[in-house]
Amino acid sequence: ELSGGRIRVKVYGAGEIVPAFEVFDAVQRGTAQMGHGAAYYWKGKSEAAQFFTAVPFGFTPDEMNAWLYHGGGLGLWRRLYADFGLHPIPAGNTGVQMGGWFNKEIKSLDDIKGLKMRIPGLGGEVFARAGGTPVSLPGGELFTALQSGTIDATEWVGPYNDLAFGLYEAAKYYYYPGWHEPGATLECIVQKKAFDSLPKDLQAVVETACAAVNQDMLAEMTAQNGGALKTLVEEHGVKLRAFPDEVLQKLKELSEEVVAEIARRDPQGKAIYASYQAFREKVLPWTAIADRAYLNARG
Amino acid sequence: ELSGGRIRVKVYGAGEIVPAFEVFDAVQRGTAQMGHGAAYYWKGKSEAAQFFTAVPFGFTPDEMNAWLYHGGGLGLWRRLYADFGLHPIPAGNTGVQMGGWFNKEIKSLDDIKGLKMRIPGLGGEVFARAGGTPVSLPGGELFTALQSGTIDATEWVGPYNDLAFGLYEAAKYYYYPGWHEPGATLECIVQKKAFDSLPKDLQAVVETACAAVNQDMLAEMTAQNGGALKTLVEEHGVKLRAFPDEVLQKLKELSEEVVAEIARRDPQGKAIYASYQAFREKVLPWTAIADRAYLNARG
Repeated sequence: ELSGGRIRVKVYGAGEIVPAFEVFDAVQRGTAQMGHGAAYYWKGKSEAAQFFTAVPFGFTPDEMNAWLYHGGGLGLWRRLYADFGLHPIPAGNTGVQMGGWFNKEIKSLDDIKGLKMRIPGLGGEVFARAGGTPVSLPGGELFTALQSGTIDATEWVGPYNDLAFGLYEAAKYYYYPGWHEPGATLECIVQKKAFDSLPKDLQAVVETACAAVNQDMLAEMTAQNGGALKTLVEEHGVKLRAFPDEVLQKLKELSEEVVAEIARRDPQGKAIYASYQAFREKVLPWTAIADRAYLNARG
Repeated sequence: ELSGGRIRVKVYGAGEIVPAFEVFDAVQRGTAQMGHGAAYYWKGKSEAAQFFTAVPFGFTPDEMNAWLYHGGGLGLWRRLYADFGLHPIPAGNTGVQMGGWFNKEIKSLDDIKGLKMRIPGLGGEVFARAGGTPVSLPGGELFTALQSGTIDATEWVGPYNDLAFGLYEAAKYYYYPGWHEPGATLECIVQKKAFDSLPKDLQAVVETACAAVNQDMLAEMTAQNGGALKTLVEEHGVKLRAFPDEVLQKLKELSEEVVAEIARRDPQGKAIYASYQAFREKVLPWTAIADRAYLNARG
């Protein structure tokens, strides 16, 4: 509508034209000119891509937008993807996630030891260093694996998505906060050749539509999570629990290690990590006296 | 650019074609077809309009977007403005503000008594009930009034804007959090007749451009405030202080009173307050275990 009919987007569901987790390749090959995904799925192509989705104990959605749009983040992301013939655009954010579903209480670091949890990406690496066993499973298998005891725990998204998945029937303890993924930025990946060949006004249409989607998904998640959380606790008897401070402290230390290692292993990761860290040093003191102090005062 | 040249926006600065605070009237009269402002400036037209900018101890920017776009808020806003022949679109957010500049330390409620502070709107009403004297002054007069002692304190926006204003030269104590304005939503006001006459695709262009601006301003503020805060503290010797718990607690109680009274006085305010409160009861428990718990864990 935004383009007056000059751009036509045909939407295919997950798996409909390419298998899950192959969106990056499909757009690169030209099977589609545009795809929707999350950069951390492509860590096999580039470990550094993970910075553009979510980092354990990293940026909140607002800080992420600040870094991407006004702190150099998006420019680095585009330089990274240009090597693959792709043009990334931020397009959606799921907000601060929940810490996950557990079949037993987590009272100390000892309770993490040997725990089999579905937790992908950098969060999984951190979880392994804390003594847990991260397992990689596609979304469709989570419920059965958790119910049958193949895994002891799983993270998914937040109350809105987790309620729809029925995870409360497979585990009763629902932990917060989502230290491993404080708001995942989703991406629209466009074939760079196709994007560059668009006239300026249609490029602006695509960029602006994605920016609006980026804000809108976060707004929808924020609006829906509250009601879903209430339903989970009041109708399904879910037991809401905070991770103990000792556990969070350890996970935070390990997260710093894991993230710093990407920068050492991956040449492009070095520049991206440097930018992320420099921005972090400026933005965190601000968030602490703005958002954090305000939320603590409001109660 | 987004419209391929089919919409031309000529930008006039504040005061250039209409005096400050008359944007609402000017668009209503048709002097301009579109204006940029903040709904709380029009409380003389409708007290309820204030809900659509910021409420003391009310929604953060993300909660505000959730209410507006996915919780019925925007529909109520449009119904309110339709009576004036106007069509509002959210278009910018300044983020959680600072509590203001003070020429002395605030150690207890007693230090508020008799204090002359520039603090407009609902925040000013709350401040008056706490024993202070709210003063209304345009931005251009703040610096001189604070330096000459005509006022003892003033709030403005956040470090980025406050640094540019030079307020650190007139007062040394810089307080947080901004309980009175936890993120002001700015608005694009369009003449309803002009908006309705646009073809669907150009309506989408205007709405989507505003949504992108809404996100972008918050991203810019978040990106710039950190560096400005550092400059204020390290280069200008500003003393950063948190309001004491006792003061915040009292201001919070008084805020509930003041906001509830609008609903009783203003007929349209009743429905808007009911929607705001119902959404608040759902969203606050979510923010507490998502954003708040995460920020506290991250430190």
